[in-house]
Amino acid sequence: MHETIRVVVWNEFIHEREKEEVRQIYPNGIHATLAEFLSAQPDMAVKTATLQEPEHGLSEDVVNNTDVLLWWGHAAHEAVQDEIVVRVHERVLAGMGLIVLHSGHFARIFKKLLGTSGTLNYREAGEKERLWNLEPGHPIAAGIGEYFELPQTEMYGERFDIPTPDKLIFISWFEGGDVFRSGCCWERGHGRIFYFRPGHETYPIYHDENVQRVIVNAVRWARPSRFVENEIQQKKPPEKLSRPGR
Amino acid sequence: MHETIRVVVWNEFIHEREKEEVRQIYPNGIHATLAEFLSAQPDMAVKTATLQEPEHGLSEDVVNNTDVLLWWGHAAHEAVQDEIVVRVHERVLAGMGLIVLHSGHFARIFKKLLGTSGTLNYREAGEKERLWNLEPGHPIAAGIGEYFELPQTEMYGERFDIPTPDKLIFISWFEGGDVFRSGCCWERGHGRIFYFRPGHETYPIYHDENVQRVIVNAVRWARPSRFVENEIQQKKPPEKLSRPGR
Amino acid sequence: MHETIRVVVWNEFIHEREKEEVRQIYPNGIHATLAEFLSAQPDMAVKTATLQEPEHGLSEDVVNNTDVLLWWGHAAHEAVQDEIVVRVHERVLAGMGLIVLHSGHFARIFKKLLGTSGTLNYREAGEKERLWNLEPGHPIAAGIGEYFELPQTEMYGERFDIPTPDKLIFISWFEGGDVFRSGCCWERGHGRIFYFRPGHETYPIYHDENVQRVIVNAVRWARPSRFVENEIQQKKPPEKLSRPGR
Amino acid sequence: MHETIRVVVWNEFIHEREKEEVRQIYPNGIHATLAEFLSAQPDMAVKTATLQEPEHGLSEDVVNNTDVLLWWGHAAHEAVQDEIVVRVHERVLAGMGLIVLHSGHFARIFKKLLGTSGTLNYREAGEKERLWNLEPGHPIAAGIGEYFELPQTEMYGERFDIPTPDKLIFISWFEGGDVFRSGCCWERGHGRIFYFRPGHETYPIYHDENVQRVIVNAVRWARPSRFVENEIQQKKPPEKLSRPGR
Repeated sequence: MHETIRVVVWNEFIHEREKEEVRQIYPNGIHATLAEFLSAQPDMAVKTATLQEPEHGLSEDVVNNTDVLLWWGHAAHEAVQDEIVVRVHERVLAGMGLIVLHSGHFARIFKKLLGTSGTLNYREAGEKERLWNLEPGHPIAAGIGEYFELPQTEMYGERFDIPTPDKLIFISWFEGGDVFRSGCCWERGHGRIFYFRPGHETYPIYHDENVQRVIVNAVRWARPSRFVENEIQQKKPPEKLSRPGR
Repeated sequence: MHETIRVVVWNEFIHEREKEEVRQIYPNGIHATLAEFLSAQPDMAVKTATLQEPEHGLSEDVVNNTDVLLWWGHAAHEAVQDEIVVRVHERVLAGMGLIVLHSGHFARIFKKLLGTSGTLNYREAGEKERLWNLEPGHPIAAGIGEYFELPQTEMYGERFDIPTPDKLIFISWFEGGDVFRSGCCWERGHGRIFYFRPGHETYPIYHDENVQRVIVNAVRWARPSRFVENEIQQKKPPEKLSRPGR
Repeated sequence: MHETIRVVVWNEFIHEREKEEVRQIYPNGIHATLAEFLSAQPDMAVKTATLQEPEHGLSEDVVNNTDVLLWWGHAAHEAVQDEIVVRVHERVLAGMGLIVLHSGHFARIFKKLLGTSGTLNYREAGEKERLWNLEPGHPIAAGIGEYFELPQTEMYGERFDIPTPDKLIFISWFEGGDVFRSGCCWERGHGRIFYFRPGHETYPIYHDENVQRVIVNAVRWARPSRFVENEIQQKKPPEKLSRPGR
Repeated sequence: MHETIRVVVWNEFIHEREKEEVRQIYPNGIHATLAEFLSAQPDMAVKTATLQEPEHGLSEDVVNNTDVLLWWGHAAHEAVQDEIVVRVHERVLAGMGLIVLHSGHFARIFKKLLGTSGTLNYREAGEKERLWNLEPGHPIAAGIGEYFELPQTEMYGERFDIPTPDKLIFISWFEGGDVFRSGCCWERGHGRIFYFRPGHETYPIYHDENVQRVIVNAVRWARPSRFVENEIQQKKPPEKLSRPGR
């Protein structure tokens, strides 16, 4: 295990450059805000990467030296190149942690890892959300009370098309009458995946103290014990066969 | 629910045309043998499809009228076109059952649905396999005793890179010293998936009575109750919002 | 498999005899109401049993001839005798389906099968509940739309202390701001267990059309394929040992 | 989280006192051997407890100051008092880790936490066992290769009556032709449970380097992040109700 957790925050970085209202909340991009509070943790070494960089900032060298990757995308999921999706996918299967945020439910890497469509219901009405903490003893919920609230959010509602989570950490209650599985854990290959619903570019969600705490916790939880390659192997038998070679 | 189970057996149909030893076991192709014993079931209406047909025999019309699809491939996984993989994938998420056989652990559709690499260890030495029945009360194991044996098989050994199965029905013991999760159930979207290890083209595996029984059972288990489309929907709130429209 | 599904509805039958307001809703007891709509199904043969009967109406003969047992209790969980709990427990492990309703989250049989405490939050304020359907393709949700509502209910809220359900069918939204995993599936031994939250004695919940539909569906889902005893067995080796007998 | 992991090794301590052949392998009891290699870990503070002590050595004070409990029992499962089983059960639900070894598959605490019978097949013939490592990236398998072997063991074979493990770490291959799920993880309440098959009193299993490594790893994995009590609570609504108080 590497001494510090090597974190990369990936952002498609489109809304913040195109919309004034988003820029006011995230002047240097959502990735910068995420990187800022993660960098304040003594056990994390944090970098950022965006869609616009060569190889989307996710070169082989970067990916091979990342323990946990955070993913934020919304407007440009299809602009992410095949090669990069495959590279990240293989690295997660080898052990890299992946934290997919909010609209990343439609990210190519999320759908490739889980195999489902990621569809859901949504509504943009600035309504109240209350996230209930189902697993107060789980590392991802450390420091979180019985629930926490976000005063104004975009609503995501069930049915969310995902495989049954290994562990369901949060369920959201929405003022408008919907519910959502908002914090979901899976393991695929040797890697851990956490989906965390809160986000959206026009509300200051990533400035919220509880949201930040969950993301910090999730990075620690998703850190790999070690990396292991998956490869097909032709094997000699450990035991003697009665009819060797057929 | 359709009155009979509409089954399609898909086969890449390559080894049987190219290798005399395979043709001797499956003169009309593995799909023909599978279709034959499935057709003998009064509740099943069975068709076949192969890689060589237009759209691999899996036109929209065929796929939209299939309840359960069986999949056998080995030499030509990469020859299956994107469009067909996407079509089958969407149909499984909508409810179609999928039974993936033996070397199908590397089929594009299997990897797309489960999100993992499907890697495993293997050995072709004609060794004995004993499949232990972990779930004698499960519909897939109906009529199967404590275990059943196959006198000569290709070995598949752990670690098999799959998501933890929802239910593990069979574990194989191999003469050469390996073990394998040989009967695995998952649900993805609204569809049921069963992976069944026995197969291989140079042993008469699909002529075995127990193997046939498991496949017949699995078809019945994988049949959808109904089909449901997954689509993203913008929703009005069922409850009155305190600040409608923000 | 028995031709019809042999159903037993068990009720502690206390509130209905002691409180006038409950008697008005369930004049012959909750069990009678449940038995009535289940009996209307052509594939079900339904009996009832209550706490007050000898062996609580669950003699060996009754239990050994039951495919699916429904359980309603609230005020007298501790009055259920050890011997009967053990008998029902063994029968579920052998394959009998069990449907635990509402306040049965604290029933001895529920805690014995799941191993957790069944604690939750609650509030009796006659508030509105909306049950979201997470699995429209699942047999238990057949005929249920995107959600259904109950105008006045006792609230049960998270955290509910249960093992992660194999499949989560319903999540409830409550007017007062809570959420709950209201329809939960598990398998233990060879038996299927479904917990269904709606109930309570002072609201006419079991007269609701959607609630009845879910319970009917759940009975069909919980029906065993066959019964299998669990017993420890000393076994001879199927393979020849190199050092027989040590 | 407590600075060091507070470990208690519990042993019924019967065979070692009664049988000379067992005493030769474990002169001071199995618990002493387990405690010895665990005590060598710098992050663990280890105590032992046995059936013969008052309250079986598991007083409230001891249990409330334990992070991870190891359990070895075989001949005297029924001698463990109700009160102690309940105490340990509640503490596991509150977060204490529990590692159940070998014949503990029939321990009262194991059955109470998992809800199943724990039945299995067995054979005492000194045969070879090979444990395949299914999760080389999992903390419990740290330092373990593709598999490890035990030259002489009692056989445990499937079907093992347990709930589907959250994660299956090891599957055993036995010379005599059986297989077994030998390393199983579950979470119940806020606590983690690991069942590890190797053991038996007449083979020097707990002197094996790989067995010791797995147990050390499992203690670290089972350590709670924090303890959380489960209690039923009557709650005021976080939201305003339309018909307060009915």
